[in-house]
Amino acid sequence: MILGHFLVISLALNAGFLYRDYCKGKHHYQEFFSFKNECKNASLTLLETSPPPFSSSSSSSKAFDGIINLDHGDPTMYERYWQEMGDKTTVVINGWQFISYFSDVRKVCWFLEPEFANSIIRLHKLVGNAITEDRYIVVGTGSTQLFQAVLYAVSPPNASEPISVVSAAPFYSSYPLITDFLKSGLHKWAGDAYTFNKDEPYIELVTSPNNPDGFPRQAVVNQNQGILIHDFAYYWPQYIPISSPADHDIMLFTVSKSTGHAGTRIGWALVKDKEIAKKMTEFIVLSTIGVSKDSQIRAAKILQVVSDSHQYKGNFKEGKAFFEDSYDHMARRWKQLRDAVNVSKLFSLPDFTSGTCTFSGRTFGSQPAFAWLKCEGEIDDCESFLHGHEILTRGGKHFGGSEKYVRISMLPRDETFDQFIERLSSISSS
Amino acid sequence: MILGHFLVISLALNAGFLYRDYCKGKHHYQEFFSFKNECKNASLTLLETSPPPFSSSSSSSKAFDGIINLDHGDPTMYERYWQEMGDKTTVVINGWQFISYFSDVRKVCWFLEPEFANSIIRLHKLVGNAITEDRYIVVGTGSTQLFQAVLYAVSPPNASEPISVVSAAPFYSSYPLITDFLKSGLHKWAGDAYTFNKDEPYIELVTSPNNPDGFPRQAVVNQNQGILIHDFAYYWPQYIPISSPADHDIMLFTVSKSTGHAGTRIGWALVKDKEIAKKMTEFIVLSTIGVSKDSQIRAAKILQVVSDSHQYKGNFKEGKAFFEDSYDHMARRWKQLRDAVNVSKLFSLPDFTSGTCTFSGRTFGSQPAFAWLKCEGEIDDCESFLHGHEILTRGGKHFGGSEKYVRISMLPRDETFDQFIERLSSISSS
Repeated sequence: MILGHFLVISLALNAGFLYRDYCKGKHHYQEFFSFKNECKNASLTLLETSPPPFSSSSSSSKAFDGIINLDHGDPTMYERYWQEMGDKTTVVINGWQFISYFSDVRKVCWFLEPEFANSIIRLHKLVGNAITEDRYIVVGTGSTQLFQAVLYAVSPPNASEPISVVSAAPFYSSYPLITDFLKSGLHKWAGDAYTFNKDEPYIELVTSPNNPDGFPRQAVVNQNQGILIHDFAYYWPQYIPISSPADHDIMLFTVSKSTGHAGTRIGWALVKDKEIAKKMTEFIVLSTIGVSKDSQIRAAKILQVVSDSHQYKGNFKEGKAFFEDSYDHMARRWKQLRDAVNVSKLFSLPDFTSGTCTFSGRTFGSQPAFAWLKCEGEIDDCESFLHGHEILTRGGKHFGGSEKYVRISMLPRDETFDQFIERLSSISSS
Repeated sequence: MILGHFLVISLALNAGFLYRDYCKGKHHYQEFFSFKNECKNASLTLLETSPPPFSSSSSSSKAFDGIINLDHGDPTMYERYWQEMGDKTTVVINGWQFISYFSDVRKVCWFLEPEFANSIIRLHKLVGNAITEDRYIVVGTGSTQLFQAVLYAVSPPNASEPISVVSAAPFYSSYPLITDFLKSGLHKWAGDAYTFNKDEPYIELVTSPNNPDGFPRQAVVNQNQGILIHDFAYYWPQYIPISSPADHDIMLFTVSKSTGHAGTRIGWALVKDKEIAKKMTEFIVLSTIGVSKDSQIRAAKILQVVSDSHQYKGNFKEGKAFFEDSYDHMARRWKQLRDAVNVSKLFSLPDFTSGTCTFSGRTFGSQPAFAWLKCEGEIDDCESFLHGHEILTRGGKHFGGSEKYVRISMLPRDETFDQFIERLSSISSS
């Protein structure tokens, strides 16, 4: 299989994504790229064709023919933990279950399975990362759908102009795409929140810890007409010290990055205002008439087992509480990466202030799901440079940042990650 | 529990829906209704709060406090069949499965589970209702999402005006809502296809058999600039004689109405053109980053068992092949309804021409998933009239038709349907 023979889809996922194409090839998603990608930045990605371990058909970030794809945030790192847990998270669904569209019509979000709602509340209480009291829970097909549901819910329906949507750069690369792809008259992407200075209503997206750079974030636009959306996909104790329970009007979470189950496509929102929760529910009805019950039931089981693994350790093998195991995993990977970077003068990584985690009691600096790597010195286009070494990453400009930076997924399977470290070290020392 | 004490969500679902509200109450989804509903047509709906049989938490069209809700197409009729099939359709999913976003990156629709694709092809070949050769399969979170994916895929991306979307009245009441709810610059609802006469590109939705009236349909706009979308949600042998395998450019199907599993939120499109399939895939990535793997696996199992029930009858109890059982069920219900209507001068029903089904060999007239009931004589607002008898239906004007008509779901549980027939008979004879 030869580089270049393929229609190539480099899928930049994290709860994020971005299509690219091989510019010289005959396939080019012209319209799709028009407001985001330029050919000089497009990269060629080959994805493996043989099945990965533990999965009958999926394939993602594993290396193939030398290519190491860390462009998207496919969280396959978590497969090992869940395999070691055996049948504790197995779900069994009978043919006559979940026929109906409805879950609980007494709730604002009537397609939310009560079992899933309970598992969310229990986990947040255990971890202490979000207030759930006096909140409405809205379930979505991943937090990507919930983000769109919030935009729909908070955009003025009859304004003469679409409302501006901003986020501080570097921002999650999918925000602009998702906000604008339907050319909605309700909302429009208005770029970096640091440069937004219009005296008009706006929506500000606050991702904390941030994707791509891992830093904790607060709103940056200093105006009183703003509606804030807090994306807490990564506010979990394997990535960052939990400082206090988040307490904002609209907070988004997802199983993809908390437990790793990206394929279930389940996210949830904690929403203070009933009318916003209702309009989000409306959006999801219009978009997909609710959310898979099967996946909600599965996600409920997984979140319950995560809580059990901490609260009933006796039933679990020693050291296998979920957030302990995943914290250790991330810590090992960040040590490997920092060691590789430190021996070189080519790259640098962000420095994170240490904090004490109210959940684990540990004091540590962040170990994010993505590494925001900088190419030092003469290298101006870090993505192309690494591409030359067959490491696929996502360049800083997709995040509204500099081409000196790339975002690298820290969540592939062990073999891919080890290969990446080996490759990076060989560049450093060459 | 008293009529009127509730925030009331009358969910008009079928693969369709419509929110309404209790107009006199304090809750009014003003924006949501602004382009579709008017208060005089809103109806009060109470939904049961006790769990229905076979389901731990869902509740839908069962009567409560005398109210019989047949406004939406919740297909709970099918629960009984699947319960009788026991564990044949039980699925077991382990905790480490379907972690990844990816299913098969060699496919245009890279999040489509191969197992589900195979089950679709097998079932269409068995039933003979659609050509699958040389088609791309795109999976969606119900056919509702696929409809939006097609609109995105075929709308000119850089046109100065959004493209017109039309369908012959009476049309599925959700089409206008879905087309316009985000005020997209790509497409706009342009109403009844019979009255469309602009000399410009357009999209025509062809639902066959039609929702709400059950008649087979063909495109009606006689121009050469049209893009056709065929919605075949109901082109299955329990509802209508299969005449030949459908062979159109873009064809939509859903498990909700074929096997009854609405809660799984799974639909599929058969698409001739690769570029359209690619853009539909793009839409689903931007909208929800793929489709629940858990539900795809479950849907695959269910479709395989449907095929097995016909091809390996020996393993199934006599008379329990899926389409035979569901055909009989629909036939009984339509006989009950026609008997009730025939003794009255108040109502009438459509007459369907008989045809021979290439699948079953039976000759029969359609027995649709919805009854398009007409109030005869002096009754001008059929929905309000039936509402007065505590039967909730969806009035004709929501479908671009006359208020003399209502759409009635034929797919509730047996007890609800029997109660409905009894109630209708009592009106007739009063």
